[in-house]
Amino acid sequence: MAENPTRVEAFSDGVFAIAITLLILEIRVPHVDHGLWNGLLALWPSYVAFLLSFVVILIMWVNHHELLRMVDGISYPFLFANGLLLLTITFVPFPTAVLAAHLGTPEARTAVTFYCGMFVVNALCWNVLFATIVRSGLLHRDVTAEAVAGVRKAYYSGTVAYLISTIVAWFRPTLGLLMNVALWIVWIRLSYRAAQQAEQPT
Amino acid sequence: MAENPTRVEAFSDGVFAIAITLLILEIRVPHVDHGLWNGLLALWPSYVAFLLSFVVILIMWVNHHELLRMVDGISYPFLFANGLLLLTITFVPFPTAVLAAHLGTPEARTAVTFYCGMFVVNALCWNVLFATIVRSGLLHRDVTAEAVAGVRKAYYSGTVAYLISTIVAWFRPTLGLLMNVALWIVWIRLSYRAAQQAEQPT
Amino acid sequence: MAENPTRVEAFSDGVFAIAITLLILEIRVPHVDHGLWNGLLALWPSYVAFLLSFVVILIMWVNHHELLRMVDGISYPFLFANGLLLLTITFVPFPTAVLAAHLGTPEARTAVTFYCGMFVVNALCWNVLFATIVRSGLLHRDVTAEAVAGVRKAYYSGTVAYLISTIVAWFRPTLGLLMNVALWIVWIRLSYRAAQQAEQPT
Amino acid sequence: MAENPTRVEAFSDGVFAIAITLLILEIRVPHVDHGLWNGLLALWPSYVAFLLSFVVILIMWVNHHELLRMVDGISYPFLFANGLLLLTITFVPFPTAVLAAHLGTPEARTAVTFYCGMFVVNALCWNVLFATIVRSGLLHRDVTAEAVAGVRKAYYSGTVAYLISTIVAWFRPTLGLLMNVALWIVWIRLSYRAAQQAEQPT
Repeated sequence: MAENPTRVEAFSDGVFAIAITLLILEIRVPHVDHGLWNGLLALWPSYVAFLLSFVVILIMWVNHHELLRMVDGISYPFLFANGLLLLTITFVPFPTAVLAAHLGTPEARTAVTFYCGMFVVNALCWNVLFATIVRSGLLHRDVTAEAVAGVRKAYYSGTVAYLISTIVAWFRPTLGLLMNVALWIVWIRLSYRAAQQAEQPT
Repeated sequence: MAENPTRVEAFSDGVFAIAITLLILEIRVPHVDHGLWNGLLALWPSYVAFLLSFVVILIMWVNHHELLRMVDGISYPFLFANGLLLLTITFVPFPTAVLAAHLGTPEARTAVTFYCGMFVVNALCWNVLFATIVRSGLLHRDVTAEAVAGVRKAYYSGTVAYLISTIVAWFRPTLGLLMNVALWIVWIRLSYRAAQQAEQPT
Repeated sequence: MAENPTRVEAFSDGVFAIAITLLILEIRVPHVDHGLWNGLLALWPSYVAFLLSFVVILIMWVNHHELLRMVDGISYPFLFANGLLLLTITFVPFPTAVLAAHLGTPEARTAVTFYCGMFVVNALCWNVLFATIVRSGLLHRDVTAEAVAGVRKAYYSGTVAYLISTIVAWFRPTLGLLMNVALWIVWIRLSYRAAQQAEQPT
Repeated sequence: MAENPTRVEAFSDGVFAIAITLLILEIRVPHVDHGLWNGLLALWPSYVAFLLSFVVILIMWVNHHELLRMVDGISYPFLFANGLLLLTITFVPFPTAVLAAHLGTPEARTAVTFYCGMFVVNALCWNVLFATIVRSGLLHRDVTAEAVAGVRKAYYSGTVAYLISTIVAWFRPTLGLLMNVALWIVWIRLSYRAAQQAEQPT
């Protein structure tokens, strides 16, 4: 199984693309008892949930893209670790729908904790996937030990951060959700800076 | 990140293909209280909405195809600007369903304005995407300044035209919708002529 | 636009794959008022409709595959004629659901006629697509005039045959449906023989 | 039709990716009559069904991947045998939903038998696909007679094992389901060992 991971990329891209597009199916046409405008406005939790989940799946797709550029070959454990990660990504539309249905209600606390908790599981899967890639010896030759340590640290910190925001969400739902959003913005900025540095001549 | 945008194309194609295919899920099997034929005929707003949204997503796919032929490389801002555009495209099935549910009812005005308004946001995203491509220096070497100005002008005019049709839709829903259709026909014809000129020897 | 139709193929494949997979969403978990086995058995019209539409979309995908092997380049009219064909394919899940809901009821006649009628429109789109390919001069150099005439005749005959089965369906629903099935079997056999002949040395 | 099966791979990957992602649509937002946590917990049959079907489709994708590495060319019978297999895979979300709706109810027996029975049909399709590949002479030259016998035996044993677990499921649903899970674990381990042996120098 020394082939390159092209078909894994294609399959993963398919799953990412479908999961991100299915999110819209959770937004249903509103009833018009109080006028369509009011109905559309009352759907704000659905829009928020759609936007958050779209952005986070997009971030993960970009991250998956970056990760697979480090990979040179496939193995059974890699295929299944990648599958496990995809499982958590195809699961996203469900907690998103739960969030959309309960934001602004007394059950928001449970919904947000469930939503944030899903990312803890997802973050663990990223760690498992990277550990599997390293253990199977699938890294490109030109990936430095420094780069490996960098990815490992990033994935580990992400897991801890998600865990904290999940605990916070249980006591203060809105704050927990905002912490997640802050995490994603930090992640985008860090990746961006890393990409810029990688391009600068040394 | 000097690689070519092949995987971005594949991911975007996936999102376009899924969004365009999900549209059909909004057309539900009719009740047969007054006969199935009458039920099928009464679904005309769904057929109109399906047809409009299918054609517009197809046009956008063709346009995305043309745009990415100008692009030679990827960058973080480009990936996220493209993601933002895809967000507005995966959103299309929702206003389409709202339109289908309210064409021919007193709420048509709101539904059509919402539908047209979505394209204003979408048009803004095309502008942002192109500006990001230019600013990141991702254009092919052989793209002339004239071609850049042409795309910029087309995207800018499109945004203004969608804005006007949205305002018109608020006062005259049917007229607003017809203006959108006219816009799409004009766009197809202009692109076609541009493509023909590009092929003629000078 | 002298590039080859790879991205058109990828986009079309995506639409075919999604349309064929969405068919299953129309089969809903049955109520268990009279036991789950009876509920599952009572869904036979859904299974028949699923099976028919799956096979016909598969046949069309194979046919699209064969057709695009003749094509060497793209043009605007080709992109839109192909889009028109895809429109009729993404539409398939709807008449399929209508068929599933009304087979074995007094409305079967309408449902089957609607289902068969859809294939008349679809067949017309294949004719339009092929005519567009020929008119845009996109055929491979090694495609003989004989092969062109063969495709044209096949598409034309198909349209007539679908039209007849639609008319028959209006008077005898079951017979109309069986004629469609017979058509598909004939089509598979003819293509198979053509493929075998093409491989034999002359 | 001596071309290589790239487009068949791409189409199949699309169907696998969509079928695996559609599974989540069967998990619906729970009612909150007894609190959202209780609602989420009461969905355990849906989570079990989702997890099982995700893993089995993933296993089948990996298997399809391995199988097509043996194939060098396409033929009509191959395209249709592959399509038949895909039909059973796009069907998976339905028995999954039936399972999710009836685990832990008196109808579990029927639901589990239906679920397991589907894999008997699926296993038969793998046998048909492989027999078609062999008969059409599409195997790579370097595939040994030993490897062919190995695949044939594996597919045949799988069919028998599924048949047994289906019969068991009728008398003891939980046991039948656990037998399926055991089958999948055995399959993963065997494939893994086979892959390792294939890489060792002889």
